[in-house]
Amino acid sequence: MSLSPAVSLTRDLIRCPSVTPQDAGALDIVERTLEAVGFETHRLVFTEAGTPDVDNLFAKIGAGAPHLVFAGHTDVVPTGDVARWSCDPFAGEIIDGKIIGRGASDMKGGIAAFMAATLAYIERHGAPKKGAISFLITGDEEGPSINGTVKMLDWAKARGEKFDHAIVGEPTNVSALGDTIKIGRRGSLNGKIRVLGKQGHVAYPHRADNPVPVIARIVAALSAHEFDRGTAHFDRTNLEVSSIDVGNPAVNVIPAEARAQFNVRFNDAWTLETLRARIAEVVKEAAAGARIELEFLPSNAVSFITHPGDFTELVSNAVTAATGLTPELSTSGGTSDARFITRDCPVVEFGLTNETIHAVDENARVADIDALAAVYLRILETYFVS
Amino acid sequence: MSLSPAVSLTRDLIRCPSVTPQDAGALDIVERTLEAVGFETHRLVFTEAGTPDVDNLFAKIGAGAPHLVFAGHTDVVPTGDVARWSCDPFAGEIIDGKIIGRGASDMKGGIAAFMAATLAYIERHGAPKKGAISFLITGDEEGPSINGTVKMLDWAKARGEKFDHAIVGEPTNVSALGDTIKIGRRGSLNGKIRVLGKQGHVAYPHRADNPVPVIARIVAALSAHEFDRGTAHFDRTNLEVSSIDVGNPAVNVIPAEARAQFNVRFNDAWTLETLRARIAEVVKEAAAGARIELEFLPSNAVSFITHPGDFTELVSNAVTAATGLTPELSTSGGTSDARFITRDCPVVEFGLTNETIHAVDENARVADIDALAAVYLRILETYFVS
Ligand SMILES: [Zn+2]
Ligand SMILES: [Zn+2]
Repeated sequence: MSLSPAVSLTRDLIRCPSVTPQDAGALDIVERTLEAVGFETHRLVFTEAGTPDVDNLFAKIGAGAPHLVFAGHTDVVPTGDVARWSCDPFAGEIIDGKIIGRGASDMKGGIAAFMAATLAYIERHGAPKKGAISFLITGDEEGPSINGTVKMLDWAKARGEKFDHAIVGEPTNVSALGDTIKIGRRGSLNGKIRVLGKQGHVAYPHRADNPVPVIARIVAALSAHEFDRGTAHFDRTNLEVSSIDVGNPAVNVIPAEARAQFNVRFNDAWTLETLRARIAEVVKEAAAGARIELEFLPSNAVSFITHPGDFTELVSNAVTAATGLTPELSTSGGTSDARFITRDCPVVEFGLTNETIHAVDENARVADIDALAAVYLRILETYFVS
Repeated sequence: MSLSPAVSLTRDLIRCPSVTPQDAGALDIVERTLEAVGFETHRLVFTEAGTPDVDNLFAKIGAGAPHLVFAGHTDVVPTGDVARWSCDPFAGEIIDGKIIGRGASDMKGGIAAFMAATLAYIERHGAPKKGAISFLITGDEEGPSINGTVKMLDWAKARGEKFDHAIVGEPTNVSALGDTIKIGRRGSLNGKIRVLGKQGHVAYPHRADNPVPVIARIVAALSAHEFDRGTAHFDRTNLEVSSIDVGNPAVNVIPAEARAQFNVRFNDAWTLETLRARIAEVVKEAAAGARIELEFLPSNAVSFITHPGDFTELVSNAVTAATGLTPELSTSGGTSDARFITRDCPVVEFGLTNETIHAVDENARVADIDALAAVYLRILETYFVS
């Protein structure tokens, strides 16, 4: 069977078992492919105490403005139990029109499609006469996200790169290629609560101070709290308590301490400061005087939005031209590295469908990969030629 | 220093490290001491699959009615970190008028005092001319309580023993010897709750079903529920949730399941059936349709009361005569083996103070041990002579 360039590149990338922080040859494939058509490339290994070193790639062709950057990641999440997969998750087998493998849709297929689109663009038009195309590809998106996009953006800024627009190739579509573009993301904040009581025997509760009812009241109050009702482009802010833990095996003993952890996905009605203050208020009221400790984990994920306008319209029109669908401009779902890029330029995300990401038998329809390459080619042609 | 018989026997018993199910020679001391003054003794080793074998002692002098039985346990709870003790917990050292050691007040001092009182009684009056004194001493009170008092009572019944009144030597006093007699105990019931949700990612809560807010609502409701306001002789029924556990390390993941465990101490307004039904009702309402599992652990601890009357008055008067205090007739605190004995005859509990039981540096004032022996002697003389 002869594969299209986009599908062939997807398979090549899947065959590199690049579970964060391993690269396993994935960036070499991207680098060689782009060098072959004239890109200048830079491999960037970043280091930070307490995290593994990670390899990254910046590649550029052309110069000056407009400068369009394509951002993505070659790293993938672990496979989980390989025995549950229909086939080797790093073989890139194609079955029933789908290429199966970890990273197929998140997001090796997206990177392959953008490479194929770029190669086709250069074949037709040559390198951009005016302006530049860059690839900003990290190996640290699924991991701590410390030695990746943020440091590459700093590096690029330091050498004078100026990006005008960015496309992130994350899998944005819900069920059909073309149904969803992401124009923003909610912010994310993690927190921990500790309630300090006093240990004792259940038969003598007046000599003890049970922290369990207190943590229960706090969790119930936080879970029921209405932060907002959504904003123009965003869903409502949502808090999920993901664990309560006491760890007391003795049913007759009142424990000394109870803990809980939570995550909030918040919209543009909130800053980190106002959100932290509101949470502290809800916790304090529910605690009703009990001794508590509320701790917020460092967050670099505030909400952002690329307001609908010329750029979102350009992308949206390219999607419609190639797929026949009118994409929804969405801000739902998880975070992505777009939250870092938004500081430098307008950013829009469009890639494959996200039905199987992070799951067993992750896959992408080969027709979708080719259609995605067509969308990206259309974007490049509209952006640089017309 | 010359020690009184009661204190000397207390020290001998403390020197046996009889942490359940070990006997370590403790029952031998009781058996030899009683045999020496004419008791007929029976060592009873009971067995049950899944629990350790435990040694017990039944000793009796005299015959017929009235038959007064003294019940107690020679086993003790573990010492915890020995380094935190002021001295060897199994040496029985006397410092500043206190004998220090695991079991000093719970309840080797009580057994020693009853032995000393019995010896003094027999020295003065001989064995009871009419009636009998028994010792029902188990090595399985602090453990599973399966191979101890219950099986001894069955054994005694099978051989035709009929008890008229019982005294349990548990440490009943709060701060001064003589302040508290226990005439009953609340019941105890343990339960577990499991809430079944659906795992997912916090960014997509509509695809998941978070069990954490549900368990929080249930725990808050159970903890706040007023079961009753107390009864004539009992404190109010009290429920303590002693643990909530989810065990989810991933703050971004909605867990599939949440668990909690609780204990209820209940008074004579409730049977096990009505109590279980009320709890199920509160849980169901708070669950508001969520999938839950409520499980009650087998309980053999219903509440009981020995109504104030001749026997409680006899004990109370003996306490006042020997200590100068008028004891409160209480039903508060934990359970004891009196809950089993109450099925056969009226039972009253009186022993040392419970300030240091189960704690580091457990101790008993030597003056208290002698005063307790005086109380017990007074009881024997009133019961059999006057
Ligand atoms: Zn991704
Ligand atoms: Zn005890």
